[in-house]
Amino acid sequence: MNGGNFMSYVIGIDGGGTKTEAVLSDETGQVYARVLAGPSNLNSGSRESIEGTFLKIFSEIKNQQPELFQHIDYCFAGLSGTENHVNKEFIEALFKRLVGGQFPYLIEHDAVNALYSGTFGEPGIVQIAGTGSIGFGIDQHLNKKRVGGWGYLIGDEGSGYAIGRDALQVIFQHYDRNQKETILANLIGKYFEISGDLKDIVPTIYQAESPRNHISALSKVVFEAFDMGDTDAKSILQRAAKDLSKSIEMILEHFPLSNKQVVLVGGLFNRNDVILPMLEHFLNEECELILPKVEPVIGSVIAALQQINQKYIPLQK
Amino acid sequence: MNGGNFMSYVIGIDGGGTKTEAVLSDETGQVYARVLAGPSNLNSGSRESIEGTFLKIFSEIKNQQPELFQHIDYCFAGLSGTENHVNKEFIEALFKRLVGGQFPYLIEHDAVNALYSGTFGEPGIVQIAGTGSIGFGIDQHLNKKRVGGWGYLIGDEGSGYAIGRDALQVIFQHYDRNQKETILANLIGKYFEISGDLKDIVPTIYQAESPRNHISALSKVVFEAFDMGDTDAKSILQRAAKDLSKSIEMILEHFPLSNKQVVLVGGLFNRNDVILPMLEHFLNEECELILPKVEPVIGSVIAALQQINQKYIPLQK
Repeated sequence: MNGGNFMSYVIGIDGGGTKTEAVLSDETGQVYARVLAGPSNLNSGSRESIEGTFLKIFSEIKNQQPELFQHIDYCFAGLSGTENHVNKEFIEALFKRLVGGQFPYLIEHDAVNALYSGTFGEPGIVQIAGTGSIGFGIDQHLNKKRVGGWGYLIGDEGSGYAIGRDALQVIFQHYDRNQKETILANLIGKYFEISGDLKDIVPTIYQAESPRNHISALSKVVFEAFDMGDTDAKSILQRAAKDLSKSIEMILEHFPLSNKQVVLVGGLFNRNDVILPMLEHFLNEECELILPKVEPVIGSVIAALQQINQKYIPLQK
Repeated sequence: MNGGNFMSYVIGIDGGGTKTEAVLSDETGQVYARVLAGPSNLNSGSRESIEGTFLKIFSEIKNQQPELFQHIDYCFAGLSGTENHVNKEFIEALFKRLVGGQFPYLIEHDAVNALYSGTFGEPGIVQIAGTGSIGFGIDQHLNKKRVGGWGYLIGDEGSGYAIGRDALQVIFQHYDRNQKETILANLIGKYFEISGDLKDIVPTIYQAESPRNHISALSKVVFEAFDMGDTDAKSILQRAAKDLSKSIEMILEHFPLSNKQVVLVGGLFNRNDVILPMLEHFLNEECELILPKVEPVIGSVIAALQQINQKYIPLQK
């Protein structure tokens, strides 16, 4: 839209189940307004709260930059939960009501922002592994492919949840065999502040408000046990890395990528010293493993610029 | 207590998370009173409701047989949830208050009743596989060994839940590979009354009041797909049978049994035509696989008679 010497101004939005972040930025990454708001995922918030989130975002950006707001070229919102078409239609209707006619917008899965936070808008794959897991790829023709992300009750292989669950399973298998004193079992007992019998943690888990988050948090304990040489912890982490590599390869099977950039996003890669070498070991194809270079909301800015045929050229490296 | 020609009268109680059954019986299995009441498992009912359950049981038995109630020799209650010592102590205090001093009683895990419903009081192993799974054994010295039963978030290998979860996992792995038209996938879609995209079942599962029961119910669909020749269904059921055989063997490792009787209890064995041959294939030791011969509450009667050194000798075969 703007060409030559004129700046483009875009809004990038990164939204999830607990918080949503938005920035008004130009193509150099210069941020003119920033808003932090509540959830934007209909799977975790009410319709009212999500309306409130976007009302806040657009009105605060306008308040912070009334002049620039008149010159927005594009808005890209990468939001979790929008793979569900009912959710997506609700958000689209909401955007139409709030900013329809003022500037064009696109609502997409938040995996897009995550990908572009590592590839700066290039095609590639993002493998997310936090509490849950999902793989997502975009090829040179902007075809998209998602793998996994079916949630903790069905899959989420390679996620923090899967690691925590595997840890519980293995320590109770040892328990059943009267081999209760492993490094991992002791650390998990300590984590739950159990002084007596390990099986006393069972009611704690089932009565937890969110067993999912509780179990996922155990993945940190598994890394700790791995650092101390526990062989079960090693097997569990290797299994997770293997599952993540399978997810990546399923996307590569779906469409060939000349440049096999794989962005790794999520809490699991805080321990990239452990997970990256394991991933490299299991991947059958030569991939370039990348950790995010900018925040995901800047990934949304990049996606917005891409929609108006502009490239993101950061001011400083 | 009674010897020679005198009859013994015992109360047998079989209790779980949704209902509790009690009978007043003699050693021939002749039932003089029968009461059906609510839950007796503190993990699923309030303290008040469980007090109500046992109040109802003892007062109704007394009402039905005021004369015989004066001559009860023993009461055995096999109740789920009593592996937790807090729960067990609560039930023991309750029994003391309700019938203490009137007759002796013993509170145990409900796996004991399940075992004796197949072995008539002989040592052996019971492998339970319904929504959840647990293995339990008693040797000739009345030593006990439990394996598994850690619940759906941790283990329950070989259970209906594990089968349903494996089925969901495999159909969505195929979905990710664009192979959506398998027998199993179609039957699961039909079960959830999905006409469009298979992924529309995902919110149904996560928003279900009890995802655990919902997923476990899918095991019936897996058997249906197996009957129609689906290879995934076959692998899933074989994995379950293998896990159940491992559970049985872990108990045999714990203590040797001269007579390797294995009682198979729970909804999974409704399809014993499928599961029994698979179990026989995976078991490394020669076991006698038995389906229950009497109801579990009669298993409790047998356990009560055993406590007073009486044998259960059913009137008719």
